[in-house]
Amino acid sequence: MENLKTQVAIIGSGPAGLLLGQLLYKAGISHIIIEQRSADYVASRIRAGILEQVSVDLLNQAGVDENLKKFGLPHEGIEILSNGSKHRVDLSALTQGKQVTVYGQTEVTKDLMQAREAADLCTYYEAQDVQVHDFDQQQPYVTFQQNGQSFRLACDFIAGCDGYHGVCRASVPQDKIKTFEKVYPFGWLGVLADVPPVSDELIYVQSERGFALCSMRSKTHSRYYLQVPVTDHVEEWSDERFWDELKNRLDEESRNNLVTGTSIEKSIAPLRSFVTEPMRFGKLFLAGDAAHIVPPTGAKGLNLAASDIAYLSSALIDFYQNNSTQGIDEYSEKCLTRVWKAERFSWWMTHLLHRFETESEFDHKIKQAELNYILDSHAGLTTLAENYVGLPY
Amino acid sequence: MENLKTQVAIIGSGPAGLLLGQLLYKAGISHIIIEQRSADYVASRIRAGILEQVSVDLLNQAGVDENLKKFGLPHEGIEILSNGSKHRVDLSALTQGKQVTVYGQTEVTKDLMQAREAADLCTYYEAQDVQVHDFDQQQPYVTFQQNGQSFRLACDFIAGCDGYHGVCRASVPQDKIKTFEKVYPFGWLGVLADVPPVSDELIYVQSERGFALCSMRSKTHSRYYLQVPVTDHVEEWSDERFWDELKNRLDEESRNNLVTGTSIEKSIAPLRSFVTEPMRFGKLFLAGDAAHIVPPTGAKGLNLAASDIAYLSSALIDFYQNNSTQGIDEYSEKCLTRVWKAERFSWWMTHLLHRFETESEFDHKIKQAELNYILDSHAGLTTLAENYVGLPY
Repeated sequence: MENLKTQVAIIGSGPAGLLLGQLLYKAGISHIIIEQRSADYVASRIRAGILEQVSVDLLNQAGVDENLKKFGLPHEGIEILSNGSKHRVDLSALTQGKQVTVYGQTEVTKDLMQAREAADLCTYYEAQDVQVHDFDQQQPYVTFQQNGQSFRLACDFIAGCDGYHGVCRASVPQDKIKTFEKVYPFGWLGVLADVPPVSDELIYVQSERGFALCSMRSKTHSRYYLQVPVTDHVEEWSDERFWDELKNRLDEESRNNLVTGTSIEKSIAPLRSFVTEPMRFGKLFLAGDAAHIVPPTGAKGLNLAASDIAYLSSALIDFYQNNSTQGIDEYSEKCLTRVWKAERFSWWMTHLLHRFETESEFDHKIKQAELNYILDSHAGLTTLAENYVGLPY
Repeated sequence: MENLKTQVAIIGSGPAGLLLGQLLYKAGISHIIIEQRSADYVASRIRAGILEQVSVDLLNQAGVDENLKKFGLPHEGIEILSNGSKHRVDLSALTQGKQVTVYGQTEVTKDLMQAREAADLCTYYEAQDVQVHDFDQQQPYVTFQQNGQSFRLACDFIAGCDGYHGVCRASVPQDKIKTFEKVYPFGWLGVLADVPPVSDELIYVQSERGFALCSMRSKTHSRYYLQVPVTDHVEEWSDERFWDELKNRLDEESRNNLVTGTSIEKSIAPLRSFVTEPMRFGKLFLAGDAAHIVPPTGAKGLNLAASDIAYLSSALIDFYQNNSTQGIDEYSEKCLTRVWKAERFSWWMTHLLHRFETESEFDHKIKQAELNYILDSHAGLTTLAENYVGLPY
């Protein structure tokens, strides 16, 4: 058993854990990251790609925005294609100049890992049997194995950044935690391809055949999604079938502009809404997917992880620099206020744009009326835009 | 069999039929109203009491707004009480000065009946076995009995203003009509009392015990509502029980200000959303409750009837004065565009403020997050306000 000691033990090296590590490092607070997977696996996961301005600002604060500045694509609007007609939502005009930035989560992760390597910060990859202990006591600690060796990491705090399936949330006694969940009866079939995007801006598609999204990672990398039954298997979707179905859901102009090509990644992701209350348990903080999941429709997953880390890093910095526990005490409530707003928005976008087989004809008409109203009303469009670019912290 | 002849046969003498009659009379177009009930019954029905500005304007156009001007109470805001804390929605500030007018539907009906009497216009009350014929032909007609005598009324057009249970919609062949419906699992228990209202403005109450509404008909007449199970009977609700339960759903300030008294009317109304498509069948037009029902939460029922009549009267006037069928041809689509927006708003207000026993904890939290967002965001408040004061024709 090797004994280790640090101020903050971070479980999980996804963007939440990596960003927290970087912010703590900049503030002179020691930390160690423990990750079950390999570095290669972490670096290659393909996820979302839309950053709110507050997330961009946080990456700047962490000093890891060099590539983001160089390669991120600022977007000032999105398109909504509803029943064959396109409507542009001018995000910037509706929000006094705010915008979002298209930059893949995979790139964010790589940038953070590179910065971490440059600063020679400590990460235990491929850690097995990770367990968190005594977080309701004065001296929490973490145990794990790596390459057959046992470790015991003593710390002041544990940051649970280990995702939905992680050990941190699972370690909280059942009677101390409440969870809220909604599972949607469909998934997103995603394809990544080395082709230029069909449009300069994202196109959210509501159609009788179901939802589709034309997204991108760069000017030469496109990311497309189709709503499919959650029971579908990716093997049932040849590239040809995918492109055909996408075309079926698009308007004529987009159909004609669409450049198809061989998929370099193809997968089906289920859609889920999930929230944990509270998000702090003594000295254990949950952040990002460990505490909440949103369906990808509103592009809020990575951004919510970033805002958790904004609250958590400033709480910990305030604690170590000013001996104040205020940020720590308020962490859960502050996060959850923003989380529920993003959960609502993500649920609403999902509800509005997807086809639900179980909805009544009345429900379907009401949804169409809601979308028509939103696209028709300046106030309605503003509610969409201000949530999409991200509500203030 | 007595033979009658007119240009427009109006079935039903509720506010829709009466208002249409008045507008046609002013334009020199002949009409006859046929009503199944007695004049006394029609005049004493107690219904909604909030008029949009466009409805007020229409009553002015019909020349029946003398009492409305004198006794109507302009309201520039409403209160929303959510989980014990009150939020004022400044309708006027959010909609460039628009407002609503509190004036009972019963009063509107009385004013219209008085104007009708003064102009000596023809109404057949207590008509039995009313039937509409040949509205898909060139020469429609209406048959009915009154006091044992049979009548046949030849006309150019039939206006179906005879409500949800009326004969007009029921006379349309099943394959020509589509209906959309949602029945809510609760009702509104309403009490009318000769007591001053608890507040100068309406208070919409969302609470863990269910919805409540503090409304009024005048400065000395209050109208209060409680969400109750649709299976409740009015006999189970003594005045004392009603006031006690209302107090339970209010905040302390309102509870202290509430003046209780003997109820002069008490009833339970079910809540329903209902739309008929289309709203014209040849020479038969449906208007008001005959074509659509909204739950009362957004106070849109009477106002939608008024906007139908605005479209219908101008279509008929345009036909007789300019020989144009454009208004007639567009009637259904124009009405339905506005109807679905009001249906959406009424459904949304109902959904947001009522307690649904069947909703999951996640759904309940999302609703709370939505209400918090709406009350927190200028754009969100504006969506509520612009719908409440009434979208433009």
